[in-house]
This record gives sequence, C-alpha cells and structure tokens, in this order.
Amino acid sequence: MSDSTTVHPLEYIFHPQSIAVVGVSPDPNKHNVGRFFMTGLLNQGYRGRLYAVGLEGGDFQGMPIYLNIRDVPDTIDYTMVAIPSRSTIQLVRDAAEKGVKLMHFFTAGFSEIGGADESSLERELVYVAREKGVRVLGPNCMGIYYPKEGLTFNPTFSHRTGRIGFISQSGGNSIYAAHMAPRRGLFYSKIVSYGNGADLNESDFLDYMADDPETGVIALYVEGVRDGERFLHALRRAAATKPVIVYKGGMSAVGGSAALSHTGSIAGSGTVWKAALQQDGAIQVDDIDEMIDLSLLFDFMEPAAGQNTAIIGVGGGNSVLVADTWAAAGLSVPGFSPEIRERLKQELGGEAGSSYHNPMDIFAMFTIESLHKVIGILSGQPGIDNIMVHLPIGLISMVTTLPVTASTEILIQLPAEIKRRLLVVLYSPFTRDDVDLMLKSGKALYEGGIPVYPSAGRAARALKRFVQYHARRAAK
Amino acid sequence: MSDSTTVHPLEYIFHPQSIAVVGVSPDPNKHNVGRFFMTGLLNQGYRGRLYAVGLEGGDFQGMPIYLNIRDVPDTIDYTMVAIPSRSTIQLVRDAAEKGVKLMHFFTAGFSEIGGADESSLERELVYVAREKGVRVLGPNCMGIYYPKEGLTFNPTFSHRTGRIGFISQSGGNSIYAAHMAPRRGLFYSKIVSYGNGADLNESDFLDYMADDPETGVIALYVEGVRDGERFLHALRRAAATKPVIVYKGGMSAVGGSAALSHTGSIAGSGTVWKAALQQDGAIQVDDIDEMIDLSLLFDFMEPAAGQNTAIIGVGGGNSVLVADTWAAAGLSVPGFSPEIRERLKQELGGEAGSSYHNPMDIFAMFTIESLHKVIGILSGQPGIDNIMVHLPIGLISMVTTLPVTASTEILIQLPAEIKRRLLVVLYSPFTRDDVDLMLKSGKALYEGGIPVYPSAGRAARALKRFVQYHARRAAK
Repeated sequence: MSDSTTVHPLEYIFHPQSIAVVGVSPDPNKHNVGRFFMTGLLNQGYRGRLYAVGLEGGDFQGMPIYLNIRDVPDTIDYTMVAIPSRSTIQLVRDAAEKGVKLMHFFTAGFSEIGGADESSLERELVYVAREKGVRVLGPNCMGIYYPKEGLTFNPTFSHRTGRIGFISQSGGNSIYAAHMAPRRGLFYSKIVSYGNGADLNESDFLDYMADDPETGVIALYVEGVRDGERFLHALRRAAATKPVIVYKGGMSAVGGSAALSHTGSIAGSGTVWKAALQQDGAIQVDDIDEMIDLSLLFDFMEPAAGQNTAIIGVGGGNSVLVADTWAAAGLSVPGFSPEIRERLKQELGGEAGSSYHNPMDIFAMFTIESLHKVIGILSGQPGIDNIMVHLPIGLISMVTTLPVTASTEILIQLPAEIKRRLLVVLYSPFTRDDVDLMLKSGKALYEGGIPVYPSAGRAARALKRFVQYHARRAAK
Repeated sequence: MSDSTTVHPLEYIFHPQSIAVVGVSPDPNKHNVGRFFMTGLLNQGYRGRLYAVGLEGGDFQGMPIYLNIRDVPDTIDYTMVAIPSRSTIQLVRDAAEKGVKLMHFFTAGFSEIGGADESSLERELVYVAREKGVRVLGPNCMGIYYPKEGLTFNPTFSHRTGRIGFISQSGGNSIYAAHMAPRRGLFYSKIVSYGNGADLNESDFLDYMADDPETGVIALYVEGVRDGERFLHALRRAAATKPVIVYKGGMSAVGGSAALSHTGSIAGSGTVWKAALQQDGAIQVDDIDEMIDLSLLFDFMEPAAGQNTAIIGVGGGNSVLVADTWAAAGLSVPGFSPEIRERLKQELGGEAGSSYHNPMDIFAMFTIESLHKVIGILSGQPGIDNIMVHLPIGLISMVTTLPVTASTEILIQLPAEIKRRLLVVLYSPFTRDDVDLMLKSGKALYEGGIPVYPSAGRAARALKRFVQYHARRAAK
C-alpha cells in the first residue's frame, strides 16, 4: 500500500520505455493479433521504443520482425504476446534475459479450458516468470489501455484521457467499454483487461487504482476472484477513497458456469456477492451499459443531487411512460407547488393541451423560448433537485428537425450550475436522419457538459444509484 | 357481439367510401395537421373519394379546399378533424347533414385539460353527435391506420399489411409503434388511436378486434378505462380467442396523474390492474418496445416452444452476461448432455479457447461451417426447445465484416422448422459501419423468417412471456 506521496509498486507497468509485440506476422492480409497490437500502438502514438517479434521474420511496415525476442538489440520493459500456449514458457525465459518486467499474454488455452494439463501449464508459466522477476498479465486477456502514454491493445480507441479507471476480467467487455464510453463523452484514465488473472489480478489493480491520482472513478468487471479476503480488503480501501462501480458477471448458476469456462473463475453465489459488495461500499450494476450510464453522472453531475426530479418533454404517452419509469426506479417526481404552476401559466400562457404538471408535456407549446423559460422557472426551486428533459427524436422531427437542434443549443447555453443538475434523454429515432440527428445532438450536449441517455429507464437507474451513493456517503 | 359469419357492427368505420379532412391550410409552408393528413392519405393510396375543407379556402395540390363541409358536392362517410375545439360542435351538425358516420377529432382541449368547461364541451360533442347518428373517435387522438384500405394519419407509415391489431389511447405511442414494428419485420392489420375515448373507446375496439379475422394478435396501450366491467368483459372475450398484449400506462401514482392530464383517464391502482389483466388472460408488458418484442414471437415462432434454450454466440464475457440475463428472466439454459458434447467435439475439433458448454462461446472457432454444424447438432435435441444466437457486431467486425453477413446467410438458409425455434440477438455496434451492418443483417434475418432483438435482455423477456402464455393455454 502507498500514500499519495509515494509511488505505487505497480506504477511502473504503465510506463514501459520499450515494448516487444511477440507473434507478429509479416503478411498484411492475415488477421493476426500481433499485427493488430502493432497497429494499435502506432495509431495511439506510443512514444517508447517498439519492436516486432515473429517466427516468420520479414518486416512490419518497414520495421524488422525479429525471429526471437533475444535478437532485439535493446532492453525491453513490456511484451504483448500472441503465440500458441505451448511456446510461452520458453518465451518467458528468453524475455527475462532482455530485462522484461511485465508480460501480457493474449494467448489463451490455459486454466479457462478446464483441463488439468492447461491449468498446470498456467501455474508453470507464473512460477517461471516470478522466479525471473517478471510479472504476468493474463493469460487470455487484452492487456493495458492507457491513452496518456499511448498504450493500447486496439487500433480504434480514443486518444483522449479521462477520469474513469476500468479493470476488466473480460477482454470483450474491455473493448466494448472502451468503444462505447467516448461516444457518451466519457473517457478513461486506464483500462486493464486481466483475463485469467494468474499472477496480477483484480485485487492488485483495485489497490493500484485506489491510489492512482489520474483515476476518479473505478469500474470493475469481475467474474470471480482468486482470494476473496484480499479482494474485499482492496475493495473496501478503494471504495473509501472514490466511487467503485462493480459489474459482477456470473451472478446466476448458469452464468457462473459460463464464467468458469471463460476465465477459469469460480463465480461464487450471487447472493453472497451482492451482500459483500454492498457492505463494502461498492455500487453494483447489471451490465457494461449501466456502468457507463452511472460513470457519466460521476463525471457530469452535481454530487449533492437528490432524487426529486422535474420532468419536461414531448408527448403525452411519453410523459406517462417516463413518470412510470422514474417511479419504478424508486425516484420521485414531486408535484409542482401552486407558486410554480402560477409562474408557468403566467410566462407560458394557457395553450390548450399543455399542462403545468410534473411530468410536463411541452408538445403543444414546443418553442425554444418555452423550453428555456420552463427550465429557468424550475431550476433552483426548493424541492426540485434535478431536471430531466426527454426528447423523442422521431416524434419531434416529424414536425420539423429544428426543435431538437435548437433545444440542444438552449440546453448547452444554460449556466453551469443548472447543467450540473440536468439529464437529457434523446430517444426513439424513426428514420436514418433521426439517428444522425440523435448522434449529432448527443455529441453537442455531452461536449457542453450534459449527460445524455438513450432511454428514460437507463437514466433513471443511473440517477437512482448516484443519489443512493451520495446519500450513503453523507450518512457516514 | 358477432360470430365469424356476421359482420361486426363497427366494421363499417374501417371502410369509408369518402373522407373529408377538416382544417386544411392552402399554405404549403405551414406545419398544418390537415395537410399532414391529406398527404398521408394520398401517399398511402387511399382509393375512396377525398376532400379538403378549411376556412382559408384555396387549394391543396390542385384539389379545392372547401370553406365548409356542407359545400362538398358529395356524401361523406368519415371526417378527420383538426380545428379549434370551440368550432367542433357546429362541425358535427354540418357533417351530419353530409351523411358522415364517423368523425375523428385530432383536436385537443377537452376533458384532458381537467377544467369543467372543457369536460362539458366534450360531453356536448358526443351528445350532439350521437343524437345525429354520428360516432366519435377521440377527441385528442390520431385516428385510424388501416394499410389494406389506404387509411392513415401519417405520410410515412408502411404500406404492408400484417396480423397485429393495435389499440392505443396515446397518439404518440401509436406513431412510435407504427414506425418501429415494420423495422423488425412486424406489420399491422389496423391501428386505432382513440385518445380521450369520449364515445368509441378501448372496449369497443377490443370487441371489434376479437372478431376481426385480419387480426391475429391484439396489442393495447391503455391509461385508464371508462367502464371497468365492460372493459374486463371485452378483454376476457378477446383473450379467449387470440393473444392480447397490454401495456398499461400510469401504473405508478405519478404516471397515473400524468395519464389524467394526457387523456383525462383515471388510471386506477397498478396492483389492481396487474391482477385483473393476469386473471383475464392478457399479457402485460412495460413499454411499446416490449409489446413489439413479444408480438414478433407470436408472428415468427413455433407456439410450442419451451424455455430450455441453447445459447450460441461470440465472446466469453458476453456469454456470461447472456446466461445471467436468461436466468434473470426465469428461463433455462440447460447443460449439454455428454452425447451432445461428444458430437460437438467430434465435428468441431478441440481448438483452444472453444468450450462445449451451454452457453457456447464460438469466438475461437468462428467460421461459417462451425456455426452451421453447431445449430445442426443442437436443433431437435431432446431438452432443447429453442436456440438463441447472439452476434456482437462491433467485436466481430473488428476482425472482419464477413462473419456477420455470412452467419446471417447460414441462418436464413436453415430449414423452416429450425428457424421457427430460433432467436437472434444483433447487438453492440461500435462504428457507423457496424450500425449499417446491423440494420442490413437484421432486415435479411426477419425477411428470412427469424426474429431479431437488439439485446439479450429484450429477447429473454419476450421469450419468457411467450412461453408462459402457451404454458397457461396448454394447462386450460
């Protein structure tokens, strides 16, 4: 453990001066993971020294592909490995000679297979590595994404740095999360995909991210843990310093058995997990989308926000649905006070069909001015903690495409203190043009500092958890 | 009530020989609902006689706009009305002189406002109409969509006829449902949006659709009912003949009060509704998407399908998530028998990382042949009722775009008896190209007779309700 003045013992693994990718094919037409890693590092702008290693030799974009890692004329800090499992032990021995400190194995075919031979190979891999002073990430994983240093396992990830640290047992989930979050305006400090976790595992990275000043929120996807006690200790410590969002895969019996064959994890009872996570201050979510939905609020929203929401949007049926959704999530949609209703009526007039209730259907009076006025009147009212604006793209753009774009502008230009209590739901596109409008407006909103959701249900579940987290912290 | 040899007393309202749209502006630059209705009927290919009426006169695309409905030189069966509420009573009197049998009022500003004057105006409207032998649809609604006869309230709806009849208290929900279902391969016999239901209401249309030979499945969005006993009677009768899917809006207290100001409905207690719907054989869903998700199975799937699902798809983390999702919905993912596992191993070999468990991650062996083989081996196995194939577009197309397209081809070419036990989940697109691929593959699949879902959760909830419905029917 370390305090803020010392460097965490794992810090070095995020700052390799040189990397060797092992398992690179010279054939550009081949789908080859080694080439994929090389392209990723080059695209991401990795600034250290980069080397390719592969049995066939040749070159990768003019860079020599060394037949053996020992042939690389340099010391190497970090290897990314995609070769058959049977060749990994010898590679560890060779790599250790080059001074390698961390080996990431994309290579699968170890304990996740469930056979005695494969499990024994995994144990030997770690044994040999540790004996040589080498740490192992994986096997059966994607490795490290650290945009600030240009580290990545994928050529298409964002170059932008954010405050979310994600630790993922699943490689697929790490790729999904890395792709989806930036499209919502959310960026990562670091992502670590650790797979079977044969050496470095969830507890190591929880411990690291708890101390990491670049990480403001920790997200974790875990199927099972190696050492329950150590994990709960690391979790407790992390959750005491920053929000920790946990998506536990394999909560069901059959999901648990799927986890076993995915990363060799014993998933454990869902009920026990749920209780332990809650007791230790973690926030449990049910999938990666929910993880992103909630992280968004930690990034964008006023921490003190309560659960009383004023809902403004378009469509009578939609207003009913949204109110039901908010209630189902356990949030509150308080009635407007007589004073608020009077002010709304004064400022907006009494058009037929418009109603000054919460939720408020602004369909009949859909003008830019009215949206602006309504938010102005409602924000800062006692008993209203936050405002949710829902814009069903298809229905609105059936009349004109202007209101969505113009509404977006109005929202972005609101003062920061109002924006930090605002959620927007952009939903129900009908046409391809609607989808474009939704993406464009969504981007404008998050760049303007407003969290955007694709459905009221997802916004409600995220807000509920966010409010609960802060209420629990305040009660301590 | 009628049996199949007689014509239902409401049948005539779906077959008007002539229509007058009242409230048409001559200005093409104006957003005018009357023009919208005219354009809709022309686009939809309405084959009866069509007339425009509007205070400003002039013409609509060369057709004269009559100043008063009495000036139309023809008898009129049906009017679609979008004029201010204060002018509606006189219009009813004038229309009755032209022989009008059904008047649809888009016009709002009646009982949904909550004021005594507006409610009284609505009562008077119905009183005058009934006295003249005219039935009223609405007010505050969209009216009738009946693609077979070219009736519509929207210029962009599908021209294709299907088996789903949808009765919707909300106009917005009727538009949403009309747009979304065809994009999933689901089409409507009729949609009726009835708004405040001041005269014709949910019970009338339930009764009608129960007898309608063109309607195979009835879907209903209701916020509240005028006459509870009559409604439950109509529901019971309808549910005895065909599946009735009910989305009840305003289940929560706040949603109920939103319903009151939307269509003037008393929503009633959510608990009472839930019990009544279940007892009378209806299937309750929580939103329009779920309504479509479930209708899809009634259209595409083998009715006898049980809850034991073989799950095949891409990604270890995804397999864990999907299995958890299936379990959470109360469905079963049974283990493969030793015989099945042996056959899978023989036919597919023992590639590292591939696992012959249920759920089955086919990432490591993702070839067209293996997908085809796996489905061939699993279909028709005792203890496996249906097969779910999940394809995370982004993850797969990161390697190549071929497998999704090729997998789609393989699935479409399967024999009909296998396809009628198949669900496909196409999900997690990363890029714009992925979205295109998802839409294209989705279309190919539903045109090939396979239901497609955008998430495992939505597929699971639909399948659970489908299986429960058939189990309940079989137990009777």
